[in-house]
Parts: sequence; structure tokens; C-alpha cells
Amino acid sequence: MERIDELQRDGLKLIQDPDCFCFGTDAVLLADFASARPGEKVMDLCAASSVVSTLMYARCPEAFYTGLEIQPKQADMGRRSIKMNGLSGRLTMVEGDLRKVETLFPRASFDVVTANPPYMPPDSLKAKSEEVAIARSEICCTLEDVIRAASYLLKYHGRFYIVYKPSRLAELFEKLLAYRLEPKTMQLVFPYKDREPEQVLIGASKQGGRQMRILPPLITYEKPGVYTRQMLQVYGQDGHHLPLADTSRSATGQ
Amino acid sequence: MERIDELQRDGLKLIQDPDCFCFGTDAVLLADFASARPGEKVMDLCAASSVVSTLMYARCPEAFYTGLEIQPKQADMGRRSIKMNGLSGRLTMVEGDLRKVETLFPRASFDVVTANPPYMPPDSLKAKSEEVAIARSEICCTLEDVIRAASYLLKYHGRFYIVYKPSRLAELFEKLLAYRLEPKTMQLVFPYKDREPEQVLIGASKQGGRQMRILPPLITYEKPGVYTRQMLQVYGQDGHHLPLADTSRSATGQ
Repeated sequence: MERIDELQRDGLKLIQDPDCFCFGTDAVLLADFASARPGEKVMDLCAASSVVSTLMYARCPEAFYTGLEIQPKQADMGRRSIKMNGLSGRLTMVEGDLRKVETLFPRASFDVVTANPPYMPPDSLKAKSEEVAIARSEICCTLEDVIRAASYLLKYHGRFYIVYKPSRLAELFEKLLAYRLEPKTMQLVFPYKDREPEQVLIGASKQGGRQMRILPPLITYEKPGVYTRQMLQVYGQDGHHLPLADTSRSATGQ
Repeated sequence: MERIDELQRDGLKLIQDPDCFCFGTDAVLLADFASARPGEKVMDLCAASSVVSTLMYARCPEAFYTGLEIQPKQADMGRRSIKMNGLSGRLTMVEGDLRKVETLFPRASFDVVTANPPYMPPDSLKAKSEEVAIARSEICCTLEDVIRAASYLLKYHGRFYIVYKPSRLAELFEKLLAYRLEPKTMQLVFPYKDREPEQVLIGASKQGGRQMRILPPLITYEKPGVYTRQMLQVYGQDGHHLPLADTSRSATGQ
């Protein structure tokens, strides 16, 4: 059943349906890690109901955001969320398949691409609906499909930001390099300072030069139930309204 | 001028000469990160005066260690260190050029290869001698040369451990994958928890499968002058004798 979630950013809201997919920490981390500048065109792949674009809009309202989503129901919720937030001039939702990106958008037409793609193998988890399975597993697109689409869409020196699973980091580097997206920044997100990371954030530059920066570790919790100051900043200035994300999803690692 | 340094491990010592090159934190981190099992054959590339092999011997005396070093003076100090430590049956020093590794050792003849290679561009630093310049800059071997040699030397599923510069991580992944060394473990070493890392440690498997583990961050200092418990463990059980490494080298980042 649909619900309306407050995003805790300037009164912005999002229509979501737990039977389809609700965004998690990954989307919030990605929207914080990525950056857009005034006037830039930003594409969010695997957009679900436009959470990443909406959160990025809150930080840079002068950019133009497009979301591409394959699932009709998600895309529809995204479109209605945009209308509800009064952002129709800034945010656009396109329903379509990123594997056919050439038929949807011209080459090199975006300055920035973001992606929080599915990263579980197909059939690896028992999802409560087909919509959830598609959002989390590589059913409708693989990592390579996402990276190929990003590379096609980006201008020379355009920026690609992705949140992904650390256990697939080698494959992520391999595919980025194969499509001329040179990794330039990386940050690992650890639940606790003495635990293995659950997310990796990478920023890459289309046809960018060598040399990259690795940022300090992003640690989520000081101790159980207590976010670090770093994580409170990711969630917004005060963090009073935590958890922003649907914590029921943390068990899947996405 | 030569000097004899205590390694703070079972009375082991090392002959070094600051006019040539003295080992630093990188070598200690690598020797701690890498692992050898009884009976295994371990090759250390860019061995200098055999510090990595000697430290690894202290943890696993039942393996067989070989060091390959291009600089005659370093190799000679290494040979004399081995003799001084009474380890001639376990440690061997070979003077030679890893770019001609095929002429020195049979293919697939080692279980483990370690490397703390030079990683500064040639002419990037004012070294106090040619020996120091060769040890730190890519004058006599590039990253690709080192990885090619490691891949040649390793058996199927043999392990390669390298300590490197985080700013070149993308290139490191690229070269490892090109030579069928699949990254399996990675750890970043941060001077402080809120600073960018100064070293990356990677363990790769020759023709290994996909999926890797990223370890918790290794933080060096709690506050200036105070090592973390993690770092004390790397340096030895009590850390009373710190600094083990020649701290004068920290300014170069190697």
C-alpha cells in the first residue's frame, strides 16, 4: 500500500510503496556523495520513485534532474511525487529500460549520472514481490548494463557516482575502466569502525585522467543505536528525524 | 654508513644503510598483512635488505623465503643479514632484475609473492643517492613490471600481497586484473580516522574467483604520538620499541 514519506529536507515528500520497494541508506549515501552544480543536467539510473534526484535537488535546486526507471508503478509514484513537491520544472521521470538507452536519450547529453543499482544475483533473495526483486537483484540490468548506459549518457569529463557492494569492488573497477569511466574518488562506509564495510561509493570521470582520492572512512554508528556525527551530517543537519530510511531493508545489505 | 637495526622480533636484526634505503612503515604493514603457511615458498620482490621476508619468517618460520633485489649493495646487505640471523636455510637473497624474471626462476614456482614496490614517478623526488631513488621511484621497474613478475612466479591460486599508494588504486586494480591476479582482500591504512589513507594493502589470488573482502580501516594514530591498538599489533605485541621504522621516510609517503 502506498504511503507518503517526509524526506526531512525543506518539506519534500516521496510516495513509496513497501510492496514495491522503499529506498534505504544506500540512496541517502549516494545523494550525499554525488554533487551537482547549478545548470547541470543530472540523470539518475534505476531511479525508483526519484529519491536520489529529490535529495540532490534539496542540495542544489539550480540543476535539472531526470530519473530513468524500468518499473511502471515506481515511475508513476515518482511522477506523482515530483508533482506533489511542485518540482515539475526541475525533475523529470522517464519510464524506460536503460539497456536501450540509445533509443531514449542522445549520447553525451548529461553532466552527471548517479546510480544505486540492484546488486544481488538473480534469485539470491526471497523478495516479497516481483517489483522488490527487480529493484534489488540483477534481473532487468547487470552492473555492466548500468555502467554502459552511464558512459553513453555522459559528456567528456562528466561525473558518474555509484553506490555498490564492497565484495564486488574489483568487478566495479573493471567495468568502470572498460567503459572509460576513470575512478577519481572513493569512500567506504563501515557500520562500526572495527567492522567490514557495507557500501562503497565511487565517483568516476568520463575519460578522466589517472590519480584518485580515497576519502576518510565513513563510520555509521558510534555504538548500537547511536549515529556518528558523520552519519548525522549525511542524513541532514540535525538528524532528529532518524531513521530517514526504511530500516527493515538493512538485513539485505542494500 | 651501514648500521644494524633490531627488528624487535625474536632477536632478529637487519643490516641497513640510510644512504641506500631503510625500510619504513610500508614494509611492516605488508609483512603483517601477508601470510605464509608452513612449507610454502614465498618470494619478495623489490626486497631491499630482506626486511619483509625476515618479518614474515618471525611469524611463520616453517616457510621458505626468497628475496629478489636489483641493487647489488642492498642484496649484499640482505645476504649478510640472513647470515647474521642464522637463517641461511630459510631465507635466500637473489640479486637480479624482475623484468627478466623468466631467466631467474621457473614459471609458477611460488605459493606467495609479496611486493613493496617503488611508487613515485621517476624524477619526482630529490633523493639523496641513486640507490634511494631506485628504491622509491619507478626507475628500474614500473607497477606493471612488478605485477607481471608476480603473476609469472605464482602457482594457480597462489597469493600476491602488495602495499601501494591509494591515489593509484584504479591503476593497481587494472594491472592486477590484466595479469589474472584477482583482488580478494583489501585494507586501507589511515593516519587518523578523519584523514585520507596513505597506504592500501591488497591480497590477490592467481586466477582466483570473483568476490572480495574489504577489511575494517586500519588507523595508525589515536592522536599525535599515540599509536592505536591496531597499529601496536602490527608492530609487535607490546609496541615498546616503537618506532620500528625509520620515521624520516614518512615525509615521502612511502
